[in-house]
Amino acid sequence: MTLEQVFKDIDASYEKYKSILAEAVAIESVSGDPTRRPQTIKMVNWVKERLEKLGVRCTLQDLGKHTVDGKELPLPPVLFGQLGDSKSKKTVLVYGHLDVQPAAKVDGWETEPFVLTERDGKLFGRGSTDDKGPVLCWLHAIEMLQKHKIDIPVNIKFCFEAMEESGSLGLAELLEKNKNAFLAGVDFVCISDSYWLGTTKPCLTHGLRGLATFKIEVTGIQQDLHSGVYGGVVHEPLQDLIWIMAQLTSVENRILIPGIYDDVAPMSKEEHQLYEKIDFNVAEFRDSVGAKKLPTEDKKTLLIRRWREPCLSLHGIEGAFSGAGEKTVIPSKVIGKFSIRLVPNMKPEKVNKIVIDYLNELWKKRGSPNTFNPRLGHDALPWVADTNEANFKAGARAVKQVHGVEPDLIREGCSIPITLTFQDLTGKSVLLLPLGAADDMAHSQNEKFNKSNYVQGVKILLSYLLELGKA
Amino acid sequence: MTLEQVFKDIDASYEKYKSILAEAVAIESVSGDPTRRPQTIKMVNWVKERLEKLGVRCTLQDLGKHTVDGKELPLPPVLFGQLGDSKSKKTVLVYGHLDVQPAAKVDGWETEPFVLTERDGKLFGRGSTDDKGPVLCWLHAIEMLQKHKIDIPVNIKFCFEAMEESGSLGLAELLEKNKNAFLAGVDFVCISDSYWLGTTKPCLTHGLRGLATFKIEVTGIQQDLHSGVYGGVVHEPLQDLIWIMAQLTSVENRILIPGIYDDVAPMSKEEHQLYEKIDFNVAEFRDSVGAKKLPTEDKKTLLIRRWREPCLSLHGIEGAFSGAGEKTVIPSKVIGKFSIRLVPNMKPEKVNKIVIDYLNELWKKRGSPNTFNPRLGHDALPWVADTNEANFKAGARAVKQVHGVEPDLIREGCSIPITLTFQDLTGKSVLLLPLGAADDMAHSQNEKFNKSNYVQGVKILLSYLLELGKA
Repeated sequence: MTLEQVFKDIDASYEKYKSILAEAVAIESVSGDPTRRPQTIKMVNWVKERLEKLGVRCTLQDLGKHTVDGKELPLPPVLFGQLGDSKSKKTVLVYGHLDVQPAAKVDGWETEPFVLTERDGKLFGRGSTDDKGPVLCWLHAIEMLQKHKIDIPVNIKFCFEAMEESGSLGLAELLEKNKNAFLAGVDFVCISDSYWLGTTKPCLTHGLRGLATFKIEVTGIQQDLHSGVYGGVVHEPLQDLIWIMAQLTSVENRILIPGIYDDVAPMSKEEHQLYEKIDFNVAEFRDSVGAKKLPTEDKKTLLIRRWREPCLSLHGIEGAFSGAGEKTVIPSKVIGKFSIRLVPNMKPEKVNKIVIDYLNELWKKRGSPNTFNPRLGHDALPWVADTNEANFKAGARAVKQVHGVEPDLIREGCSIPITLTFQDLTGKSVLLLPLGAADDMAHSQNEKFNKSNYVQGVKILLSYLLELGKA
Repeated sequence: MTLEQVFKDIDASYEKYKSILAEAVAIESVSGDPTRRPQTIKMVNWVKERLEKLGVRCTLQDLGKHTVDGKELPLPPVLFGQLGDSKSKKTVLVYGHLDVQPAAKVDGWETEPFVLTERDGKLFGRGSTDDKGPVLCWLHAIEMLQKHKIDIPVNIKFCFEAMEESGSLGLAELLEKNKNAFLAGVDFVCISDSYWLGTTKPCLTHGLRGLATFKIEVTGIQQDLHSGVYGGVVHEPLQDLIWIMAQLTSVENRILIPGIYDDVAPMSKEEHQLYEKIDFNVAEFRDSVGAKKLPTEDKKTLLIRRWREPCLSLHGIEGAFSGAGEKTVIPSKVIGKFSIRLVPNMKPEKVNKIVIDYLNELWKKRGSPNTFNPRLGHDALPWVADTNEANFKAGARAVKQVHGVEPDLIREGCSIPITLTFQDLTGKSVLLLPLGAADDMAHSQNEKFNKSNYVQGVKILLSYLLELGKA
């Protein structure tokens, strides 16, 4: 039995895979919707039964309850599973999530979001690419190896949760408690919950930015005032706030806070070369954003800014008039919101300090008698992995076997906090192995998973398991 | 029969006046609430019947219908009335409104808003001071003159509307059509729909600021973007907008737009003296606003800034994140809102031009590739009256007869557009003769009309009518 023959069998199994994904999509596991909590829990059990059929020993990890709108709700349990426990084999931990974002046809879907619908080689449905399709790729890959009696050269542990779209409530604590239990003996971690950089070329993801959010509150009058009666004779909190917010970034979207770039890790020669090789079309990206011009249109500089440099975005103002039309009011209490994306080797504590210091310095310069209260919201650390680790090498070989090309080594500008949790608790390499394409529209209307990405995804994960055995 | 005896009869009539005001307050004439349109129309008819009992010839002026939330609603008619048409007498036109702002106990009222309740010499109820109480003062004054067989030395015309709290829909057009009909032959106009500067000293109002509202729209990306994925590589519309908005005012709330103060009317020596005489406590004002410090705490400068200088207030931003909590989004289309209060001799067309020119100049300096669209919302002219006119002199004598003091001559910082309409269409003097106190809380919770202001208000209007006869 050659790998080629197994791959042919995977191609031939597409209709079966599709019907299984359709079953999964039909379970409306919207974790953010309290009325769909039963379906969200059902989805965990549905996967548990399928894993058990493959011989995986499963347990449900109870996370207790949480309160939503004053009502207590059971949290969906986390599904732990284990397939194989050979002392002579290494162990890979696979993470995925079984819950989805909300979706409704009226939001602008062209098909029913919870009815998987194939059109032009695309499988439309909520959760098709995020993350039910990739989770099923693991199950199909294992089933196929078993069917063809191919020894799986690694032990596999599964950690599937169903609260990812709602902040992964309770997961980090559960994993911490299991550092020396379920997580013990793990050699590699693999997460398939991100996307290719484009629509045609596969990639491996080795970095994520962190985040620090900030709030600036300005108060000074006891209630909103009529701007006709009081205009001109009060220090308006909103004028102060906007003056401060205007001094955080340049027109080219560079951060004006002194020292903010100081700790950004220098780029090695290898990293420079990496960026040069990446397949990325700036014009296509600019058009997809709908911008006339970008602050930089040099491919390398643009990717560096997206992935390995900090950035500051203004999000809005709470407390000011935000409706349509007109309201001639002087708002009394306004809160500006902005956030900074962090990259190695920035330290959140230091970022917090220099940001708050800068804000306080601006405030002093402003000289307003109003009350100023800048504060940190929350923060998350950046993550970057060593792509020379065996885990990445196995992933790269698997991709090459299926697609015939070396995957691009990319980063993401956003945060996936669980990545760092796994790395910290296991001390081992975490590989982000995306199966979906950049245009899959996760979280948005008309989410889809390409037929080809689904089938190739099964092949990549199967191949990855085999390659890990050689690591 | 001396005026003193008539005034005693007015004092003795308080309980009757109170019960009539209670009847008026009980009619929930909330013009902004479509479900209360029948009560709003009922209120017009209720006043019509009372006027007719006094011998006033009344007509209802139909204004047709308007559409609210897709539903057609009849507009309340405007009540025109006339008492006396002697060729040898001059004619005063009295304006008032019969509709009220919304009110509900749950908003924080200590009493039922539509049940007039007396506590500590205050009559609490929606519409008590704005404007049902003052309207009834006219009716009581006329009744008292008739009861004591005192000739009313002027013809009186009434214009009572019931859409004032909802933009006076249709009124200006109706009055324009009646320029040479109902409005013909009017010699004086009197409006009792504003408030004293403080709580103890009566005043006459001779100026109002105008208004010009502006919107600045910045767009540049086709939809809201995830700040992790796109942060740092797009020109954020909100960063551009806030940079522009930060350059409109100084920390001391002075306008930074070149030329904006150029057309402000110079102050005469008399006007300077007027401001010196006005009874106004800056510390009390500052405390009522809840501010630690005001841009100026000099009485005269403060009042000048409130009433006869332009000011610019920032109101807020449409399209940015405005909720509580965090949302790490890059908004795609943001609209900044601000307004400028106008004073004589500023011309809205010129203000509009210099504001838009300044904004465009800033935008050019910004150098952003995003799309910028600054535009005027709407404008209203300022108004200022000659306090040497017979109308004001009669008002001042009436106040002195009742309160024993010369009224302060004040202005208001806000706009009452109907004032200018009456002045333009009649070409005659308009007097704003406030009867309520500064703390009456019009539009707010616990609106009230002091017992003393109610009773003294009847006396002032009675005396004003008599004084007009001497003009």
